[in-house]
Amino acid sequence: MATEYTHKRRVQFYETDAAGIVHFSWFFRYMEEAEHALWREAGLSIHAPDSPLGWPRVGAACEFHRPLKFEQEFDVTIRVTEITSRTMSYACEMTQDGRRIATGTLKIACVSKEPDGGMTSVEIPGDIARRFKPSETPTSNLRPPASARAAAGKATSHE
Amino acid sequence: MATEYTHKRRVQFYETDAAGIVHFSWFFRYMEEAEHALWREAGLSIHAPDSPLGWPRVGAACEFHRPLKFEQEFDVTIRVTEITSRTMSYACEMTQDGRRIATGTLKIACVSKEPDGGMTSVEIPGDIARRFKPSETPTSNLRPPASARAAAGKATSHE
Amino acid sequence: MATEYTHKRRVQFYETDAAGIVHFSWFFRYMEEAEHALWREAGLSIHAPDSPLGWPRVGAACEFHRPLKFEQEFDVTIRVTEITSRTMSYACEMTQDGRRIATGTLKIACVSKEPDGGMTSVEIPGDIARRFKPSETPTSNLRPPASARAAAGKATSHE
Amino acid sequence: MATEYTHKRRVQFYETDAAGIVHFSWFFRYMEEAEHALWREAGLSIHAPDSPLGWPRVGAACEFHRPLKFEQEFDVTIRVTEITSRTMSYACEMTQDGRRIATGTLKIACVSKEPDGGMTSVEIPGDIARRFKPSETPTSNLRPPASARAAAGKATSHE
Repeated sequence: MATEYTHKRRVQFYETDAAGIVHFSWFFRYMEEAEHALWREAGLSIHAPDSPLGWPRVGAACEFHRPLKFEQEFDVTIRVTEITSRTMSYACEMTQDGRRIATGTLKIACVSKEPDGGMTSVEIPGDIARRFKPSETPTSNLRPPASARAAAGKATSHE
Repeated sequence: MATEYTHKRRVQFYETDAAGIVHFSWFFRYMEEAEHALWREAGLSIHAPDSPLGWPRVGAACEFHRPLKFEQEFDVTIRVTEITSRTMSYACEMTQDGRRIATGTLKIACVSKEPDGGMTSVEIPGDIARRFKPSETPTSNLRPPASARAAAGKATSHE
Repeated sequence: MATEYTHKRRVQFYETDAAGIVHFSWFFRYMEEAEHALWREAGLSIHAPDSPLGWPRVGAACEFHRPLKFEQEFDVTIRVTEITSRTMSYACEMTQDGRRIATGTLKIACVSKEPDGGMTSVEIPGDIARRFKPSETPTSNLRPPASARAAAGKATSHE
Repeated sequence: MATEYTHKRRVQFYETDAAGIVHFSWFFRYMEEAEHALWREAGLSIHAPDSPLGWPRVGAACEFHRPLKFEQEFDVTIRVTEITSRTMSYACEMTQDGRRIATGTLKIACVSKEPDGGMTSVEIPGDIARRFKPSETPTSNLRPPASARAAAGKATSHE
């Protein structure tokens, strides 16, 4: 059962912009990379070849505290904050040597993929929902105390 | 004096993902494209070659209402919602034939670029701030009534 | 019947990198944008919702002559150079105020999309092949003389 | 002294397109990721903060043999094929479980960054050129025999 995952990453050159720092759009991709790694940690693929389900994003937000530059290494920690019957929410923190770089949130919905390419909101199947355990830390608190972090089903790996 | 700008856009193939729709990270880029077009409309470049100033993003958020697909045409309307001494905020609405696709916000800060590559928060120069007029519609209301839109210094152009 | 298309474009900020110029990977996307505009000009979509066909790239190459920077406007001219029973080839030239920025080639194949997600090479349907007329200029000559350009079914439009 | 590097990678969702496979533009980014890892292996950064030098690409080409899909893992092996006084060339092979996915080439030039943002071709400094040893395998042969690979200063690591 997965609650949190820390994805290790290095800034690639094509992620930087003419201001010399990572373009802000990339932080949303970093969050998603960590989300998908969390799903793999939970034994799932968020886009399995034969699955009739899809997981479009319904909302995403990020605050940018410090810039990242080419070749810098950083951590992306994502945590499940809430699971409702049809949605999942995450909080995400990006850090570099312990310093906060960015903090964000992501909310996704479970949909059924229609033959015509459309999507219909459906309930999250139990065998998927059971793989995740929302953090007991309030959603608004992106930085839980160390004790809460130790208690959660935390995973960290280098990819 | 610029308040609002509508940027016309067509979905490119590389913006779609394996779910068959535009990847959510692109909506943040669409917002930025519209922002930079608004600045050009105001007679400015947000990244002028000789400028000692930079405009990093301090926050960005987006809600996704409907998917966009390959080759579809849509509008990105961005509106200045607030200018403080050191920051500017925008609200953005993406529509397709009048239907709401996504709504977002963007907040940027004015910084001085240091020789070592660092950035220091500085006040927005008056000759830049004077080029923009925040909308009188409250920030929280992304969809101003038609009358407010008519009253604002609205620009629309196809690029 | 389409032979050539000129796609007008402006450099977006997220296309630049920390060297202050457009990242080289974007030139391949510029070529593809022009290719898809050429197909629209020919009355076709290269990725029509109901089509059982796909058009994966089998080869792409580009030479970079001059850098492009933020907000610069440039032209992407793509030309069909060869159509075989199963492939199409293009030559592409990117220019800025008449100066050559980059030149490239692209080769695509026609495939049938299999239910399992696989792809099988198939012949290009006649009603698609007939929409394109390869340039009579030799493939190796990216810059045909003005007379050849005038003779070809040339299209130019701003998007 | 570095000759070859194998960069391990997993396909991210935002790298796929509506055809369900990695968009071809990404293969050029994969090559560059491997190139920059090769430079780190050689004890260098290709974009060091204080360096007056830049390394723009002068040419890039890729042939696409098999598609890659979401979450698949693959290897990107890059090899220095030639160093002249002002340029470096690489050959690159992308494989998945030993099967060839794509093969490409990349040529870069050494430039001096001018204060006005321009670039002037310059000779590669000896202390950089000495860190790389071109493969003795002919450039045209992307797949050297095992003996040649064993003889070269090969590095492999997971990032």
